[in-house]
This record gives sequence, structure tokens and C-alpha cells, in this order.
Amino acid sequence: MKSVIGKNITLALYGESHGRAIGVVADGFPAGIKVDTDFIQSQLDKRKPKGKISTQRREEDDFVIISGVFNGFTTGTPVHIMIENKAQHSGDYHPELPRPSHADYAAHVKYAGFEDWRGGGHFSGRLTAPVVAVGAIAIDVLKNKGITIGTHIKKCQHVEDRNFENYADDIALCNSEYFATLDKNAGTQMQQHIENTGADCDSVGGVLETAVLGLPAGVGEPYFNSLESVLSHYLFSIGGVKGVEFGLGFDFADHLGSEVNDAFEMFEGRVVTKTNNNGGINGGISNGMPVVFRTAIKPTPSIFKTQDTVDLKTMENAKLTLTGRHDPAIFHRARVVVDSMTALALLDLLVQRYGERWLSE
Amino acid sequence: MKSVIGKNITLALYGESHGRAIGVVADGFPAGIKVDTDFIQSQLDKRKPKGKISTQRREEDDFVIISGVFNGFTTGTPVHIMIENKAQHSGDYHPELPRPSHADYAAHVKYAGFEDWRGGGHFSGRLTAPVVAVGAIAIDVLKNKGITIGTHIKKCQHVEDRNFENYADDIALCNSEYFATLDKNAGTQMQQHIENTGADCDSVGGVLETAVLGLPAGVGEPYFNSLESVLSHYLFSIGGVKGVEFGLGFDFADHLGSEVNDAFEMFEGRVVTKTNNNGGINGGISNGMPVVFRTAIKPTPSIFKTQDTVDLKTMENAKLTLTGRHDPAIFHRARVVVDSMTALALLDLLVQRYGERWLSE
Amino acid sequence: MKSVIGKNITLALYGESHGRAIGVVADGFPAGIKVDTDFIQSQLDKRKPKGKISTQRREEDDFVIISGVFNGFTTGTPVHIMIENKAQHSGDYHPELPRPSHADYAAHVKYAGFEDWRGGGHFSGRLTAPVVAVGAIAIDVLKNKGITIGTHIKKCQHVEDRNFENYADDIALCNSEYFATLDKNAGTQMQQHIENTGADCDSVGGVLETAVLGLPAGVGEPYFNSLESVLSHYLFSIGGVKGVEFGLGFDFADHLGSEVNDAFEMFEGRVVTKTNNNGGINGGISNGMPVVFRTAIKPTPSIFKTQDTVDLKTMENAKLTLTGRHDPAIFHRARVVVDSMTALALLDLLVQRYGERWLSE
Amino acid sequence: MKSVIGKNITLALYGESHGRAIGVVADGFPAGIKVDTDFIQSQLDKRKPKGKISTQRREEDDFVIISGVFNGFTTGTPVHIMIENKAQHSGDYHPELPRPSHADYAAHVKYAGFEDWRGGGHFSGRLTAPVVAVGAIAIDVLKNKGITIGTHIKKCQHVEDRNFENYADDIALCNSEYFATLDKNAGTQMQQHIENTGADCDSVGGVLETAVLGLPAGVGEPYFNSLESVLSHYLFSIGGVKGVEFGLGFDFADHLGSEVNDAFEMFEGRVVTKTNNNGGINGGISNGMPVVFRTAIKPTPSIFKTQDTVDLKTMENAKLTLTGRHDPAIFHRARVVVDSMTALALLDLLVQRYGERWLSE
Repeated sequence: MKSVIGKNITLALYGESHGRAIGVVADGFPAGIKVDTDFIQSQLDKRKPKGKISTQRREEDDFVIISGVFNGFTTGTPVHIMIENKAQHSGDYHPELPRPSHADYAAHVKYAGFEDWRGGGHFSGRLTAPVVAVGAIAIDVLKNKGITIGTHIKKCQHVEDRNFENYADDIALCNSEYFATLDKNAGTQMQQHIENTGADCDSVGGVLETAVLGLPAGVGEPYFNSLESVLSHYLFSIGGVKGVEFGLGFDFADHLGSEVNDAFEMFEGRVVTKTNNNGGINGGISNGMPVVFRTAIKPTPSIFKTQDTVDLKTMENAKLTLTGRHDPAIFHRARVVVDSMTALALLDLLVQRYGERWLSE
Repeated sequence: MKSVIGKNITLALYGESHGRAIGVVADGFPAGIKVDTDFIQSQLDKRKPKGKISTQRREEDDFVIISGVFNGFTTGTPVHIMIENKAQHSGDYHPELPRPSHADYAAHVKYAGFEDWRGGGHFSGRLTAPVVAVGAIAIDVLKNKGITIGTHIKKCQHVEDRNFENYADDIALCNSEYFATLDKNAGTQMQQHIENTGADCDSVGGVLETAVLGLPAGVGEPYFNSLESVLSHYLFSIGGVKGVEFGLGFDFADHLGSEVNDAFEMFEGRVVTKTNNNGGINGGISNGMPVVFRTAIKPTPSIFKTQDTVDLKTMENAKLTLTGRHDPAIFHRARVVVDSMTALALLDLLVQRYGERWLSE
Repeated sequence: MKSVIGKNITLALYGESHGRAIGVVADGFPAGIKVDTDFIQSQLDKRKPKGKISTQRREEDDFVIISGVFNGFTTGTPVHIMIENKAQHSGDYHPELPRPSHADYAAHVKYAGFEDWRGGGHFSGRLTAPVVAVGAIAIDVLKNKGITIGTHIKKCQHVEDRNFENYADDIALCNSEYFATLDKNAGTQMQQHIENTGADCDSVGGVLETAVLGLPAGVGEPYFNSLESVLSHYLFSIGGVKGVEFGLGFDFADHLGSEVNDAFEMFEGRVVTKTNNNGGINGGISNGMPVVFRTAIKPTPSIFKTQDTVDLKTMENAKLTLTGRHDPAIFHRARVVVDSMTALALLDLLVQRYGERWLSE
Repeated sequence: MKSVIGKNITLALYGESHGRAIGVVADGFPAGIKVDTDFIQSQLDKRKPKGKISTQRREEDDFVIISGVFNGFTTGTPVHIMIENKAQHSGDYHPELPRPSHADYAAHVKYAGFEDWRGGGHFSGRLTAPVVAVGAIAIDVLKNKGITIGTHIKKCQHVEDRNFENYADDIALCNSEYFATLDKNAGTQMQQHIENTGADCDSVGGVLETAVLGLPAGVGEPYFNSLESVLSHYLFSIGGVKGVEFGLGFDFADHLGSEVNDAFEMFEGRVVTKTNNNGGINGGISNGMPVVFRTAIKPTPSIFKTQDTVDLKTMENAKLTLTGRHDPAIFHRARVVVDSMTALALLDLLVQRYGERWLSE
């Protein structure tokens, strides 16, 4: 399978940036889930470019639920959400000049020149919009089960946000913001930095940090479907993600076992860990503590500075100067995509454990 | 699926640390691959504890090929490799006292107390041995196709190894060593540090860095089966792995697009990139450059210092003092597991593209 | 997975009879396949109700290729084909009175009353239309590889068609007809019988027989993915199919081994079998002879005679008298669905063996 | 996937007839299921050749549970059951002379001559033994949920058994017999016929009929994973099965809709159907009535009469006269394999609906 994922909640993603439409067929949502179209739209709005830190391209993202919802509730059969494409500017692209660090060249080889190169085609970041739409349904289902997800912008070059402290409050804070930082001041600095970078015809990367609260212990499978394996599979499906780490992640290499082992203790009759360096996962299985991970997102490859490339027709070195509309940063827009992927991955594992009927109870 | 992975080369892993045997059924190797049992054994030897930096536990790892190989060649039907368990000391474990940062507690909740807790049961690191055994076959197949894989120990706390420079030579160097560093001096320091840490009843983590040379452009799928998604899925299946990053990974967040975009140029008639910050992957698809990634491995959770835990029978706080034999570090032994997982993941994707018959041509 | 099938050519089917649209996302067609929209339409036309033997309901089946095709060729990314629903008469249905032998009651229990009951909802035979559309692409790909598929109506109650004789000619004959029988006279009798049955407010079942010519030996897998397993999985996905048999099928039980074993012989330098009682499959694997199977299709459950049912609101016995437009027979329309399912199943197995690139060579 | 099946209860089958061992890794049984080794052995005994109607070959089938069971209960991690091969006579086979209607030739092409040809290799009927062993666990789990399965020999050439009447009693009767017919007299005649056929150096086929009692309504998925699709996929995995039909099956083609539609009525407060011509399945989903299907099994291809074949070395016509020990019929031994496959298929679907935890409740 290719643009398909999920054993219990199966997603089939389709579409190209400048084709007729993009969308996703999500098979496996149980019957009887109330579908909140306002929430879906509000999630899509968080993914939209907005303000001075974004492209001036206007993406309408008017989604249509084509199937699987009847009288406001899921029917239990495949949910298809489609977003039509409008007003694309195919003229802005030069298919013979692959953009550095974009999918252009790799796709050209893979598809032997038959790829739809307009606007990145199937590789366009626009395809995350339908994922956000069905992800909103998944987020809603989890919320009904007491599981909440929040993502903040942990880092943008030299500017860092604070860590999660009170998970419940911080997750609520994340979900109330378009540009979500836990420290308001860090957010202001980051936005200023993005704006400056864009003005300089450049782009910038960042790190997102996500927390999942309320996930019961026992979710995830040993070895090949560890919770880390499944979550990272979904997260690396997002264009531009180049690193995923759980708990301390790469910082584990700087520490001794005695410093970072998460000791157990009793708390209000429950088993908890005193620290959460493992990010809520032991042996690939949730241990009941908040699941915490970070996602590294590279700078948007589309920059306005002139770059070296090759001409695939003449097979000679060439120069590329992009025109059109491009974001100087995308991590703040990717935030809601991370939440959606996380919710969809967790739902898949939860159905395995509790059955499809549990989700709509 | 749980302890099962792979669409084309499907692995079913089984066994418990103190059960009768551990092993793996690998379905999908094409017919006609010469099976080099000496190479399998030499790979298993790299995974064995050895010297002062390891547990004094002796693991024989005598593998037996139960099926799928006939007259020295694969038959095309499932290859089953089994390793019998011998001389385990079940007496060293206290199932009611979950070891901090181990799978014990999460597994206890997941399996409702029915788990085989002896020696970590199914969660034991011993289960990576059969993966290494079938991985050796996969590595051999790739080598015949001009694809080589090498992993070195990039970091152990304050000691860092140098980066890959000449990929072909460095990969060969990695594969010739038990404790593989590119800088011999760094290796010596690391081993001394591990030994000291062990003597101090503690453990230490590290970072592995892997390069894949010769992978053709066009491997990997957009979105849900990006090369990063598939590789990370396999890598996070290894116990103790808490972070995976490709190319610059988390360092992307410290840079501008203009600094890290990999410009294209012509080189000896081929399209190459001047830098390889994306680790050979664009848009989830290989671009023909070396694939480079790093894997963070946490300190072995089993340390001899007394730790806080809970008693699952009395549900009260408790102390745990481990006895028995435990490694102060495992990343150097995990190195060959990373190579094996990488080879198995790549084979799966290559069959998709070229067909099963291609592998044995 | 539910309305999803296929490892290499993955289909995600969606839609309800009276919803906005129905369609399928087909992921896995390689890049560079020429898409013949006229052929797609001609296949859809064979599925349409036509003449006195069919419902007077007009189904337009105007398909739109939403994604995955660019400049007339497949791009290698997901192909989405959609058919909008128009002019449905939801008023003809009584959701509280499940129609005997229809999915109504089983779906009502399964989906806890949230199912879209209008016109059978997701269970409508209309959903086979998008399968036929993508199936047409698959049939075209196979034809380029020398593999052809044909299905005739073997039996309709007391009227029987002759067996396949010259496979190449007979397959061509099947594909040139709307109501395909090999014996023209049998076809005329069947159509008259269907017309009479319809006039009598009743319906009638039938048996389809399919031949696949040109499939190379070696396709199919031992045990769990035998060629019979995979084909039957697809065939039983068609509503109304209640039996599938290969070669002699159930008639094997009437014979001795010495009567039905397919002896080998040399023919023009190739190994062939003197008879083809096994329908071209031995041990779950194609042997190079024509693949032959039969599919039993039950009488359309929607008949105009008054039937006994229950009222799901009052939970009392009730009578049901259908109005609206219903087919007295569907097997002649199902014929092209069988061809499509067969082509999609075979493509999936062929990619496993030869790789995705082979298909577009 | 090849010799692998199942989404929730995943089976990986391995082994060759004359290799070291055969076995299966079954991943997905929930923790806490009591494993009844006596019942496993009794099921294996039903599969063994016995009496004058069978080969005189002695198959010991001493199974060993290698993993996944601890203190008599499943642990929730993969269950591996292995049966060692003993005392095989490889000398009885001629790999250059493919046996008519066996897998020999198709496998030879598929595996390019690398197949283990001894005793049919991976294609040997012996590989059903481990399926029966894990199937016994599945049957036990279903029984605890009130779901019982029984299979009788419906037909052997001219001798026919009666139909199911009282399902509960008839299923119990099936499960108490080695050669199971509902009519004792029919069983005696069949056995005599098999014995005579064997004495005549020939073999004979048959039809099995299976009933599943207690399956709740709502199991199975629309279209691609209809209950018929999933069951037939498993059933056609059994060597020698050439036809599967549900309810009336192929007889549907002889009837009018008004004759065979299953009218609903209320019975003791529940919705039932007056007849069960659809074999308990509507629209691919169970309707709460007994699931009934038939499986056609061809005559054992190994007969002692001299047969025509080809010599794959010289590529010339040849004669084949088998020696060794072969069964004149296998359907009575296949009966317990059908029950096992059915139980494993249903378990997989039930986990989807109710979750893995439900099974051990």
C-alpha cells in the first residue's frame, strides 16, 4: 500500500495540487459518531495560511462530506471528505527544473516522467487538508473517551518555548491558538522571526512538541507495532518531517540510566511514574502517563533566493528562481496535521484493543 | 498485526526469553538466494555480549534454519529461523516489582497478568537475535544489488565519533568491527566510559548513525509509506530506540532554508545533490544519494543501583535491587539490529517496485 | 479493513445509493498507463440496465476521473473515479420493513440503526459501477500483457449455455455482447425467460462462467493466498454471489481421480495439460492453462410479490409490497463486474511477482 | 503476504513435508485463554490417517507449543506451535516427473527449480496439521462465546448424507466422530466406497457441509470483506478445495426469487428468517441465523494407476507410476481443517467488532 494507511481506521488519500480535487476515504469509523462540521472547519482553519507569516495564497478548503455520514452521524461505512481545487496558478512552475529539497526530482525518477508536476502534484502540502478533516472526527471520538491531544511550537531556530507543565491546561491552551506556544512571549518572537525571514526571501524550520493525555495503559504492541513505531509511521507521512523523538529522545544519549529511569510510585491508588522521561511509553506500550513526543520540521524548501539545480531536459546545470506564493515557515500550520495523524494512529490501535463498537459507546 | 511486519517480506516474530525458543518466520524471500550461514553467524556474533563492556551472561544463539532453505538456497517459501533457549535463570526476577523504564508494568496491564514475566518474556532484547539472522539474508540480497549498509556509534554521552566521509570505505569499516566507530580513538574512549559506568552499577545511552549506499532513486511512497515512515516503523520496533532522524533531523530547526536546501548539480552524467542534508530522501522517496539517519538509544534500564518501584501485589511503594547479569550499554550490540531492520525494510519496498523475481536475478 | 482490498493495487470503495456520489480510490496503478475513457464508458454501459429484461430506472453513471491521471496517462499516484448520484427516489423505501434476503436487517443490527437505509445505502448494487470503471483500466493493462478475460452466462434456471471451446474466440465473443452467451439461441431463450419472470413480479438467478487466457504459470501463493483464495475473495465481494467454483468445482465430488486428473504433455515445446479440470490452477498457483471458474448469483431479492417481513419499530410480523423499479435478473449486468474483479485481483498478484514497473513496460 | 493471513489473528505458516519441522505462528490470541492441549491433540487425531480408508503412513503429529502460552494460559504474545518431521521417505519421489493435478509443475515454474520437491515440500497436506492445532484454540474461544462449528461429509460420489436438521445436536454429532456423517448408514457406505476405490488404485472426491451456530448478527463487512469473501479466502487455502458455496449456493440458479427469499418473522421476541437459503448471510453480514456452507474437495491427485506426465529434464512425454503411501480420499480428514479455518476466520472478524479483550472475558 502506498497512500493508504491503517488497519482498523483505513485512510486512502488522493489528489493533486492542481487537479480537480483532493480528499480522503476513511474506512472504519464506527456507526453513530456525531460529526461536528464546525469543528472540522475550525481545524482546517488552523491549517490555513494566515497573517504576515504566511503565503498570500488563499486556500479555501471548502470540504464536502461525500459519504458515510447520514443525519449528522457516521453510518459505519466509508467516510469520504473531498475538497475541490480552485484557482490554481500552474504557470508558476517549471517541471524541468526540480526544486532543491522538494519531491520533484525523486518523483520524476519514480514515475518516469508521468507525474503531475503542477504545484507539486500529489506531493503538495495541500493533501494534508483532508487528513485534518477526518482527523477532526478522530480527535472528537478520542475526546469522548477522555483522551486529549495538544501540540505547541517548541522551537524555531534560536527561540524556544517552555515545556509542558500542567498537561490539561497546556493542551487546552494549544488548541485555542492559531500560532500555539505555551509562552506567549516566545510566540511573538517566533512570529517576528518568521516574518523577517520571509522578508529576506528565506524560510525557517522548527520543532513541534505534542502531548496526549488520558491514553490508558496497554495500548501499542511489542516490537513491530510498538506505539513509537505506529506513531512515527504516521508522523513521517507529513511532508517536511525529518525527525521524531519520544520522551527525552536524543537527549537520552547524554544521560546515565540512574538519571533517566522513570521510577514507579503509588499516587491516589494508581501506579504512576515520578518522572516521564520515556514519554509515557515502555516496551512499545503506553504506561498510562502522558505520551510526549517531538517532531522536527525542516525549513520550507520553496525559497525566493536563486538556487542551483539541473535542467532535466538538457541534463545541464541550471539556476532556479521561484516566483509565486510560498510560506516562509509551515510548522505552525503543520501543528494541526500532527494532532490529526496522532489521533488517527491512536484510534487504529484502540479499535484493536477495545473493538469498533467501543468507540461509539 | 502485532509482532508481524512487512507487506512483501513479512516477518512473524515469536518467543519469550525463558521459553523453549525464539525465532522468526520470514515469508517473501524469493527463490534462489544463496544462504550464507557463516555470514548469519558472524552477524549474530556482533549482537552477542562480549568483553568487559557487556554482561557476563553467555548467549549461545545457535540458530537453526527450520524451513525455506533447500540445498543451500532459498526455496521461495517461508524461511523459519529458530534459536533454542538454554540455561536461563528465572530465579533472578521478581514479577511483582516492575523494573523502572522496562516493559514490565505496561505489559502487566496489557496482558492482564497473563504475561510470561520471566526475563522480560516476549519483550526481551533476545528477540532481536532472530531478526539479525534473517536480516543477514536481506543484507546479502541487497549487497548483490549493489546496496550496502553500515552503522557506527555516533555518540555515547560526551564522546562523539566523526561523521561519515567516504561512504563506501566507512561502511566497510563499520561492518568489520564489533564496536564500530569511524574514529578509533573515540571508540576506545567510549568503551572505557561504558566499562566505568558498569563498574558504577549504572548504564549509558548512545546514538547510532547509519548510511545506506547504492539505493536507487525512486524507492518509497508519497505520504503514508514514505521512506522515512517505513524505516522509522522498523527502527522503533527495536527496544530502547526513542528517536529517529533523517539527514540533519532535529538540527533542521536551527537553520534557514537557504543554508540547508540540497542544490542539484550534474556529476559524471548523473543528477546529484551538492549537500545531503535531507539524508537521501525527498518527499518520502529516495533521490539516489546515500540514505543517512540516526537512532537514539536510551540507557539500559536494568541498573544495579537500588530504584523506587511499586509492589503490584500489595499496591504499595517498594524498593528494587536487581541482581543477575545486565549490560551497562546495548547500543553497540543494537548496531547490527539496526542494519538488519534497515535491510528488511528496504527489501520490502524494493519488491514493490521491482518484483520478487528481481531479487534473485 | 472493510470496503478496502488489495495489497499492491489497493481499492477503497465509498458511497451510498442516495448520497452525493459513489466512487473508488485505486492506489497502485503504475505510472504511464494510457487511460482509455471510451473503454471505461463502454464497460460501464455493459453494467447498465437495458431493454425489457431490466429495470426502467435510468442510471447515468457519468464517471469523472478526479485524480491520478495526467495528460491521458496514469501518474502512479492514486486514481480516484467518482460517479455523482442524481434523481434518486428515496420515497420508495420503508426502512422499518427489512426486505427479505437483502442486507437491510443485517446492516441495521451491525450499524445500530445509523445506516443510510435509502436505496440500500452503501449496500446498493450501484457501488459496483466504480469498480467496473477502475476494472476497465486493469483489464486494459492485462490486455497489453497478453492476458484476456471473458465471462458468459452459463445458466439461467433451465436454460444452459454451451461451454468454452476456443478460448480466444469465445472470450472475444463475450466481450462484444451486452447479454453474453456463447450459444446465441440460449441467449434468446434466457432473455425471454427473464422478461416473463419480470412480468410475473418475480426474479431469477443464474451462473456465470469466466475464462482467463494468457496468465503465465507461477501466479498465486501457497496456502493463504492461493489463486483460488484471492479470486474468490474478490468475487464474493459482489452482492448476490453465493458460490464460486474452479474447474470442475463441485462436480469433482462425482468423479474418481483417474477420471479427472489433468495429465501433462508436451505441446509445441511447452508443458500443457491434456484436460483442464483444475481450471488452470494447481496447488493454488496458475499452471499456464486457461483459468476457468463459475460464479453463482442468486435471484434479485427485490420482487414485486408481497412478502413476509417484520416491522423493526413495533417488532411485529408485517407484510412488504415493494414498489419502484427493480431488475428481474442481474447476472447479465454482473458479468462485467466479475471481469473487473478478476482483473483487479490478478493485477495485485502480478505486481507481487513482476513489480509495479513491469505493468507499464 | 503469502503463507500469512489474518488482520487480527495473524497466522504465519511454514515448513516442508520432509524438512525439519512444520508449524505456525499465530499472533493475536488475547491473553488469558486457557489452552486445552488434550483438545488440540484430539483435533489433530481427527486429521490423522486412520483405518482401511487411509494411507498406512504413520504421521505422529506430536505438537510442541514453543511460545505464547505460560502456566496453561495464552500470554497475549505470539503462539508458536511446531510439529517435528520424522521418518520421511524422500526416495519415493521423482522431482523431474510432475504429478498430474498436484502443485509440482506450477511450483517448479514459480520457484525456478529451487523448490523443496521432497514430498510436495511446502505444498504438502501435512501443513494443515499446525493449522488444526491453532484452530483448536480458536474453536475453544468461540465455544466460550456460545459459537459452535460442525462439519459433516455431505457427499462422496453417489452416496449422500442428509442435511442439517437440529443444528445443535447435529454439530455435536459431527464433532464426536472421526468419519462424520449425520446419517450413520451413509457413512458406512462412503467408507466402503473409499476402501473399494483405494483397492482399485484410484481416489475419490467429496463435498463437506459446515454449520456455524450462535454467530451474532452483524459480523462481516460490506463488499471487500464480506463474510463470504473472508470465509472463502480461508477455505480455498486448503489444498484440494475447488468450490465453496453458501446457503443454496449454485442451486440458487435453479430458483425464482419468490421461492428462495428468506422471509423474516418474529420468534420468541427475536427476528429470524423462516427459511435459511442464504446460509445466515445477507449483504455479506451475518443475520443471526446459522451460517451454512459447502466445500468441494477434489479426488486426491496421488493415485497408483499409471499416468501421463512430462519429464522436466528432457522435456519429453513420460509415464508416472507412483509408489509409496497415499490416501484414496482426504475429505474426511479435511473436515477438521475446515472447522479450524472457519474458527480462525470468524475470530479475526469478531476481534474487529468486539476488540481483543472481549475474547478472553
